[in-house]
Amino acid sequence: MSGDMSPSEARAQAAAILEREGIALTEQERNTIEIADFGLGELEQTGLEIVVYVNTERVCAKELVLFPHQHCPEHRHPPVDGEPGKEETFRVRSGVVHLHVEGTDDIVLGPGEQYTIPPNTLHSFEAGDDGAIVSEFSTTSRDALDVFTDPRIVR
Amino acid sequence: MSGDMSPSEARAQAAAILEREGIALTEQERNTIEIADFGLGELEQTGLEIVVYVNTERVCAKELVLFPHQHCPEHRHPPVDGEPGKEETFRVRSGVVHLHVEGTDDIVLGPGEQYTIPPNTLHSFEAGDDGAIVSEFSTTSRDALDVFTDPRIVR
Repeated sequence: MSGDMSPSEARAQAAAILEREGIALTEQERNTIEIADFGLGELEQTGLEIVVYVNTERVCAKELVLFPHQHCPEHRHPPVDGEPGKEETFRVRSGVVHLHVEGTDDIVLGPGEQYTIPPNTLHSFEAGDDGAIVSEFSTTSRDALDVFTDPRIVR
Repeated sequence: MSGDMSPSEARAQAAAILEREGIALTEQERNTIEIADFGLGELEQTGLEIVVYVNTERVCAKELVLFPHQHCPEHRHPPVDGEPGKEETFRVRSGVVHLHVEGTDDIVLGPGEQYTIPPNTLHSFEAGDDGAIVSEFSTTSRDALDVFTDPRIVR
């Protein structure tokens, strides 16, 4: 049972975490932090709080906030229009992230550590006890095309 | 006359600035911060201290440290192999950056502010009184192909 938080509560908490960790945002960015609950209605357990810095036809950069033990469910980024799928580097800014990538042993990343996930490769991740902030550097983000393993998920 | 700093002094100063601003690096990253003086031998005035987080065939992400008033000279990123040149987003993490982009009024960026420079567009920038840290999100970086306006420059 969760007493689950609302999107506006999650947005305020994520903004406070980013401020505490010294990551400067504009007011516009603070007010429009994307709250992704993947359609599961259990945001505190399964979800992401996302600041999209830039997403052009070539490059995307985001800051991801994860609450303690918050989990991003398994998915992959398939090829699009003859291009390989999205390539993502996750760089942990604060906290600890447990990363699970198809075909590799589990990976634990602390502050300053990073991992690059190849296109079209299943992956999931969750924060440790204190939550985490992760910078994501990638090719273009097309979230609607992500393929999740759990068929209940709507992105 | 500059009493100019050595690369190892610049590396140590840049690492200290990044640590002070709460940007976590691995020891390997701290020890290999790239010092670019553009062949001019006046690093404190004209140069950059660079941490390359990732540079694949598709995506690049870097942290740039600029000392007070340190300047990156005018250049552009030309097309390569039929692809448009490098596209760069500069996001200021701390300090102030003055950015000069061909065809636009001068731009001043503070913490949390950013600007995307289109491919093949002349630009230069310098830090304000307190120096700056800038996250750069871009397509692949091929520094050796950059075209500088000052013919003395070697990258």
